[in-house]
Amino acid sequence: MEKSKIGEFHFLTESYLLDFQGRIAIPMIGTYLLQAASAHAAERGFGFNDMNNCHTAWVLSRLAIEMTEYPGMSENITLYTWIEEAARLFTNRCFELTDAKGRPFGFARSIWAAIDVETRRPTHLDVDALNVYKADRPCPIEKPGKIIPVENDTPGHPYKVKYSDLDVNGHLNSIKYIEHLLDMFDMATYIEKAVSRFEIAYLSEGRYGMPLTLHAAETSPDKYSMAICHEGKAISRAMVTWR
Amino acid sequence: MEKSKIGEFHFLTESYLLDFQGRIAIPMIGTYLLQAASAHAAERGFGFNDMNNCHTAWVLSRLAIEMTEYPGMSENITLYTWIEEAARLFTNRCFELTDAKGRPFGFARSIWAAIDVETRRPTHLDVDALNVYKADRPCPIEKPGKIIPVENDTPGHPYKVKYSDLDVNGHLNSIKYIEHLLDMFDMATYIEKAVSRFEIAYLSEGRYGMPLTLHAAETSPDKYSMAICHEGKAISRAMVTWR
Repeated sequence: MEKSKIGEFHFLTESYLLDFQGRIAIPMIGTYLLQAASAHAAERGFGFNDMNNCHTAWVLSRLAIEMTEYPGMSENITLYTWIEEAARLFTNRCFELTDAKGRPFGFARSIWAAIDVETRRPTHLDVDALNVYKADRPCPIEKPGKIIPVENDTPGHPYKVKYSDLDVNGHLNSIKYIEHLLDMFDMATYIEKAVSRFEIAYLSEGRYGMPLTLHAAETSPDKYSMAICHEGKAISRAMVTWR
Repeated sequence: MEKSKIGEFHFLTESYLLDFQGRIAIPMIGTYLLQAASAHAAERGFGFNDMNNCHTAWVLSRLAIEMTEYPGMSENITLYTWIEEAARLFTNRCFELTDAKGRPFGFARSIWAAIDVETRRPTHLDVDALNVYKADRPCPIEKPGKIIPVENDTPGHPYKVKYSDLDVNGHLNSIKYIEHLLDMFDMATYIEKAVSRFEIAYLSEGRYGMPLTLHAAETSPDKYSMAICHEGKAISRAMVTWR
């Protein structure tokens, strides 16, 4: 039974997915997480298609990733994912990433809501059905928390949502928020440091052609609060911790 | 023997890879092609790591993709790839994409060169070793050809190369050229039409922070010539045919 609760997925890193330092960076780690979450849910009857049949869709609300090391070229990654808890409006899904020797190098926590695809409003989750798969496995990283707003005290870098930014719902894709935020740091920062924790809150949906502003401020040493705003209102907040 | 020449790869489309119309669009098709090319080469002793051991690297020079249909959600794709011909400076690699029923819905042609990783200059390929795998399979699409320069007659849309654009060599990633070019078309065009052929020539390497200009002009009905320029000189040209 434990086995059927915890999903196990295997990835082999590919050269064209590496960043300029030869590492699988946060956006690609995020892609692996979403892929595993999607497959884990689909295999248990609450995937994209199942949700779509009920005119609902999963929406990622929060994501926190902590990495002690980053995989390089041609590395085998094993990704475990499981449901920590399902409540009426939110499901907590956890992740553990291990290398070929079984050593963990990353953990992640995510919080998901379900929305009605027509009204785009939150709907109730089938808590009992989801909690059948609830697994009691430790995920030793902090839960996603409050992020200090920085949009009022920092200049905004303009960005306009493009065709390649859109997901199947016609909204700014979850991974693209992360890419655009991490693009605010320059190459020198990536050479000197590594992201030890990346945390993001998705507040509202970015749409095609929407003019956005990107904001970042160092709120404590090596800790940056970030925001993506539309007309001065945050559609996303994030926090990046460097080491 | 034919079996060992032609690589066969399987992909299952995932919801978070779809564009706003629920289709796997050209950039993701390109990602599948590169993934298959990379695995096919690695399995036969001339992959990224083998090349790297000789201080060389594959460089994609030309890519042409023709699609009659685009895969949707949860579709099984089979991708075949093979070497059509290897010469001293260039290798021609072909691709065929088929659906779950074995019906082809896309073909692609690519031209690859090898460079010395230190000098970044072209090196000779091991033609005999590569041609062991040469396969005689039809690829019924036109070879990549000349693309009309449009940068002198069109306004340039500025773009600056960002962290997320970089590949492991620290250059603008091959798929990102495609994304940035396809982002020049608006949502209305994607709703009305579909790309029937996308062709790109990679002329030189985009680097971090490089200010670029993106250009597009309709050179005949539903045919657009495009260019990515740095200081007025094209680093890439492309051609998009809509239907």
